[in-house]
Amino acid sequence: MNFKFDLLKKDRESQARLGMIQTAHGVIKTPVFMPVGTQGTVKSLLPEQLQNCGASVILANTYHLYLRPGQDLIKKLGGLHNFMNWQGPLLTDSGGFQVFSLGALRKITAEGVIFNSHIDGSRHLLTPQKAIAIQEALGSDIMMCLDDCTPYPATFSETQKSLDLTAKWSKLCKQAKTVNDQALFGIVQGGTYLDLRRESLEKTVALDFAGYALGGVSVGEPKEIMYDIADQITPLLPPEKPRYLMGVGTPEDIIHGVSCGIDMFDCVMPTRCARHGLLFTNKEKIVIRNARFREDNAPLDETCDCYTCKNYSRAYLRHLYIAGEILAMVLNTIHNVRYYLRLMEEIRAALREDKFTEFKNNSIKLKGR
Amino acid sequence: MNFKFDLLKKDRESQARLGMIQTAHGVIKTPVFMPVGTQGTVKSLLPEQLQNCGASVILANTYHLYLRPGQDLIKKLGGLHNFMNWQGPLLTDSGGFQVFSLGALRKITAEGVIFNSHIDGSRHLLTPQKAIAIQEALGSDIMMCLDDCTPYPATFSETQKSLDLTAKWSKLCKQAKTVNDQALFGIVQGGTYLDLRRESLEKTVALDFAGYALGGVSVGEPKEIMYDIADQITPLLPPEKPRYLMGVGTPEDIIHGVSCGIDMFDCVMPTRCARHGLLFTNKEKIVIRNARFREDNAPLDETCDCYTCKNYSRAYLRHLYIAGEILAMVLNTIHNVRYYLRLMEEIRAALREDKFTEFKNNSIKLKGR
Repeated sequence: MNFKFDLLKKDRESQARLGMIQTAHGVIKTPVFMPVGTQGTVKSLLPEQLQNCGASVILANTYHLYLRPGQDLIKKLGGLHNFMNWQGPLLTDSGGFQVFSLGALRKITAEGVIFNSHIDGSRHLLTPQKAIAIQEALGSDIMMCLDDCTPYPATFSETQKSLDLTAKWSKLCKQAKTVNDQALFGIVQGGTYLDLRRESLEKTVALDFAGYALGGVSVGEPKEIMYDIADQITPLLPPEKPRYLMGVGTPEDIIHGVSCGIDMFDCVMPTRCARHGLLFTNKEKIVIRNARFREDNAPLDETCDCYTCKNYSRAYLRHLYIAGEILAMVLNTIHNVRYYLRLMEEIRAALREDKFTEFKNNSIKLKGR
Repeated sequence: MNFKFDLLKKDRESQARLGMIQTAHGVIKTPVFMPVGTQGTVKSLLPEQLQNCGASVILANTYHLYLRPGQDLIKKLGGLHNFMNWQGPLLTDSGGFQVFSLGALRKITAEGVIFNSHIDGSRHLLTPQKAIAIQEALGSDIMMCLDDCTPYPATFSETQKSLDLTAKWSKLCKQAKTVNDQALFGIVQGGTYLDLRRESLEKTVALDFAGYALGGVSVGEPKEIMYDIADQITPLLPPEKPRYLMGVGTPEDIIHGVSCGIDMFDCVMPTRCARHGLLFTNKEKIVIRNARFREDNAPLDETCDCYTCKNYSRAYLRHLYIAGEILAMVLNTIHNVRYYLRLMEEIRAALREDKFTEFKNNSIKLKGR
């Protein structure tokens, strides 16, 4: 097994941790942010551009790749790393959250989730066993268990029932796993009920996974609740395993998550915002189509070291965006991804230098976050 | 004046020429193909990617940049080279052809062309003086005279009237030019009438421009007519000046143009086709969404040295295209632009080695062209 997590340092003033994950495809320094490459591409970016932005690991979506082009095709062509020309670590989700997001198009049974494809309406059954088989065919370095993502709001008994299903599926996922070089993470559910979160955590940890995720967050609940879950539950996870807060979040959310002891994050926010012309800087969130940038010859962010900021003005980026040019997507995405990954570099540097709390307190004051 | 053309070699068996253009922003080896960067970007490509494809000069459209973001803005921000981060030579058209393409939205007068913007319907007057002023503000290395692009079909007298207007405007353009470092090319019109082409040529050459273009081709006339004009008219142009066949064309058209003595070409074909998933190879034109590429692990073209062919399979490119991914545009455009620029490299090599006719005869047999 090539997967290994080393906890390098624990912060004195918070639960924050500095660590390193080793995978068959390379090393991941934690805390880490994983750009999302839904369909086998982080939208608009080349692998080299991702590397230049500092990406060490990216996430791919099992649901999308299962439906199109299909995991068997990808396996036949040498696995997802080769298919998409990304030779670094890859994490795949289980497809559970995407199916959950289909709403009326899916039905949850004890066996798995029956759903209709968003592409052609075709009917599919996703079981724990199948979620693992797909991810093994894709060849990701880190796989996720199929979970039942509890919606918000949900009653206590609905949440209880949901976490029981997740626990059952987690066990089946672990049993279904056949490939040694691909690590499998368990997912803690339990909705907004801290006692159910603890119960889910105990049941998941009992199965002994290579890492643990907090799922069912960022599904519509107030931010305070998500923060509270991260605060209360993360420290209960086994310290020797990496911890992943799924689908989170804003820069502020990530800094908070780190302070709770989370090691891994993913979110479509930097890439999706980029495509809509919403750009992160430490001073403000820039809406690039705004008329005040018309003649602005400055880079998006004077302090940013990304390719976009080094070579282009706000005025040019505004022009490209308004003209509907593809290059707007490329340049904006490079900037936002670099913004997120630079944030993670700053977090890791602060942890190394025992300055994380100071960093966190200063960050909260930044309007751009 | 930084503009200089050196005729390095003339082919023995055809009118083809090997040459070199020097501009304030670098050297252009001819025969050359200029990728089209309509709105201040060759759609989907970064300048570095263009360079890696072998681009030495790109074309920008005066009409588009005049309307949005405006030449004054671009001038204020350091000129078009700085604005778009392209430090190599730039050629701008006069806007005449774009306005001509507006059809019912434009009206030609002796003074210039009155037209309505395709963006917001606003009314504008493009005069010869204004066409030059805009191009000088943009700061291109090669500017084009405003011409009246004769439509196809047109009667003899319509064509005569049109070429007279072009001749008048060419003179006004030359008089309007104030910047020494920006070369100005004249445009030969005359429609499909060879005697009117000769008349237009004489009138244009009499004004002594830095180079000459054949305009009003590729506007709907049968290919044989375009070939005949290039055959008959190109050799009449002064040999010591570069010759530019505007808006042409397919690989086959370009090879033919070179054999007639043309030095410069531009066309949206490689970039536009790429965005529609139509890809050039020497064996065939590939429609990437075709089901037969579903499991095809080979590159687009085994003989191609482009980034796309070196790193990605047809199956992946098909997946990206069908999934509507932006990266499909990027990777396809890189390939098609490289295909065109490699063709030009091969043409220049053949000319150097006195093998152009052989190259031309072999090329005609290639199905991909």
